Amino acid sequence: MTLSINPFIAAIPTNPLRALFPYGARPGMLNLASGHPSKDAYDLDGLAEAASRASRDFSAWTYGPSAGDPALITALTEAVAMVPPGKRLLVTSGAQQGIDLATRTFAPPGANVLVPEPVYPAVLSTCAAIGVTPVGYQIAPGDDDLADFAAKLKTAGDVRAIYALPTFGNPTGETLTRAQRLRLLALCAEHDVPVIEDAPYSDLWFRAPPPPSLLDLASQVDGATVIYLGSLSKIMSPGLRIGWLIAPESVAAAMQEARQASDLQPNALAQRVAWHYLQSGRLDGHIARVRSLYAERHDALVAVLTKAGFTVPAVEGGMFIFPFLPKDKGNSDLFDRAVAQNVLFAPGPAFRAVAESGLFADRMRLCFAGLGKADIVVAAERLVAAVHA
Amino acid sequence: MTLSINPFIAAIPTNPLRALFPYGARPGMLNLASGHPSKDAYDLDGLAEAASRASRDFSAWTYGPSAGDPALITALTEAVAMVPPGKRLLVTSGAQQGIDLATRTFAPPGANVLVPEPVYPAVLSTCAAIGVTPVGYQIAPGDDDLADFAAKLKTAGDVRAIYALPTFGNPTGETLTRAQRLRLLALCAEHDVPVIEDAPYSDLWFRAPPPPSLLDLASQVDGATVIYLGSLSKIMSPGLRIGWLIAPESVAAAMQEARQASDLQPNALAQRVAWHYLQSGRLDGHIARVRSLYAERHDALVAVLTKAGFTVPAVEGGMFIFPFLPKDKGNSDLFDRAVAQNVLFAPGPAFRAVAESGLFADRMRLCFAGLGKADIVVAAERLVAAVHA
Repeated sequence: MTLSINPFIAAIPTNPLRALFPYGARPGMLNLASGHPSKDAYDLDGLAEAASRASRDFSAWTYGPSAGDPALITALTEAVAMVPPGKRLLVTSGAQQGIDLATRTFAPPGANVLVPEPVYPAVLSTCAAIGVTPVGYQIAPGDDDLADFAAKLKTAGDVRAIYALPTFGNPTGETLTRAQRLRLLALCAEHDVPVIEDAPYSDLWFRAPPPPSLLDLASQVDGATVIYLGSLSKIMSPGLRIGWLIAPESVAAAMQEARQASDLQPNALAQRVAWHYLQSGRLDGHIARVRSLYAERHDALVAVLTKAGFTVPAVEGGMFIFPFLPKDKGNSDLFDRAVAQNVLFAPGPAFRAVAESGLFADRMRLCFAGLGKADIVVAAERLVAAVHA
Repeated sequence: MTLSINPFIAAIPTNPLRALFPYGARPGMLNLASGHPSKDAYDLDGLAEAASRASRDFSAWTYGPSAGDPALITALTEAVAMVPPGKRLLVTSGAQQGIDLATRTFAPPGANVLVPEPVYPAVLSTCAAIGVTPVGYQIAPGDDDLADFAAKLKTAGDVRAIYALPTFGNPTGETLTRAQRLRLLALCAEHDVPVIEDAPYSDLWFRAPPPPSLLDLASQVDGATVIYLGSLSKIMSPGLRIGWLIAPESVAAAMQEARQASDLQPNALAQRVAWHYLQSGRLDGHIARVRSLYAERHDALVAVLTKAGFTVPAVEGGMFIFPFLPKDKGNSDLFDRAVAQNVLFAPGPAFRAVAESGLFADRMRLCFAGLGKADIVVAAERLVAAVHA
């Protein structure tokens, strides 16, 4: 039989980050590529205790509501998710399911969605799978910072949604200022386009909290609509696959139907574990510990790189930096040379919104969450050696 | 802001079964409507033990492969999933995600998919969400049993996939014979259309195993392609949301990318729990216990209904019967009268593939898995009283 595959599905680009998994598994490899927290950045005792409690709840093992366990929804709202009046929270299988649901809800096949350039590549997979075209926008520092965004919004045609990761972005680690946020919301409101705010890293600030979320600020901008995506992946456990979306009531109902049509409901056991962990009162202390862990690792990594001639745009939280290579150093074969030195990075071009753009050949994404302070210095030194080889 | 919603998403029909949830929660209600096993049909001790072991595995809490935990894939293959040569198994979030992935992989927006009439309604939601039109086929007993199926395959136009639930169907509980299976596969091969075989109930036989799966039989039919969907929901726990799909290598890669684009990967904790439960060696004994539990409940339910004039097509496993009301009894307001008697059933029309067909007004789906033997007799008697009221 000649199997005819839906051209949208056939066109999904391979996620270049997931393609790095096998390298990361090599013995002795120090992995700066993957956004995977190190084992000591988990509260494993607290999670095991929550799992043990959850396993004695019958509701952990049976069917439940498609919108999520009501007790978990309440607990999320009290602990980590600010739900403005007139909005609803739905539990999702990680923020990735939120990206998929929100994008599909607004963008039919053939439409365009604006995405940051550089972008988290799974967003491109989501767009491809549903026949939607991602159009890249760049936000630059300076007075005209949103000029390209405004231009794309005007010229791209049939733009149905904006994807944004304004706080400790992936891959850049950068954060939009309050003024940029307000300007972005005003432009979207003017063009009647909703914003999908992906916010998995917002709690991971080093020294001071970031500006208010787009969701928070939307109440100050007439006509602005924000779909907010949160996640427990970076503050509790990515294996739980518990995220949430916050959407206006009118859209949340449609998203809930779409969610039900794709996988019926959230994982019942994982929801109970998350609930028990939130009840345990350990989350705040755990997040505080992770913040100082990541700040320390970030500082150690940046110190080695800066000294070796890398240019590292400043970040104030999250898990990533997106430095420029030293100016006089070529990058051809750099990935192979780094692998030979037993260090892994995510090449800049992996984050292109538009494959043909030629952008980011002189940059790399480095994650400072996955290695302890001593290892991260060794990894940085190996990377420097690979660059200078 | 006027939010413009993707017309596919806006058109998802409300799942009529999930709409019954609030009735099921009323105190004193005996629920024959929902396909939810009773608490004593779970191995809660075994599950709690597996959860406790899983919680001590670091891999339960972190990221893992999109295709699923390799150890779980091996264990599923050894215990419950027969993977023919040249095929691959992917772990899914329940069989519902398998339905979504398989349908989307073959059917682009605007295409048709053949579905049984009556049908499990979540299949219709999946089709609507991706802009695909479900076309109903009926398989009748007798010599011409696949005549309607063959006719629809020929006349529907642009049919990209067949959805089938051939073993202990939902809602009918009925099972295709070996001859019907071979004929169905031959017709699909002739028309170059793949079959999506949804098989969550196959292990729940009462007295003898069902005929071989379509996946098994496909090796005997030149050019037949089957995507098989299995699930631990009916034999271990629906709250775990662990299912799997088995697809030809060539298609499995595309499905894995599609899965990654929708929610990245399967739940890591739930996969570890399923793995530990499979390692515990308790599954076979548990399934044997569930089989006899359900057989006993089925017999008790059917005895009361038959005596009261219902016509109950024979079933030999699964969780459902789809009886006809006594001939002289009207069904208007029957749902309300039953609710007044504190018994809940799923009305036949909820299972129409085509809303306007007018079919199944004289039938109802009853689940015999959710109530113990004593309760099920009381529920059946209440139902009889409602019918005769």
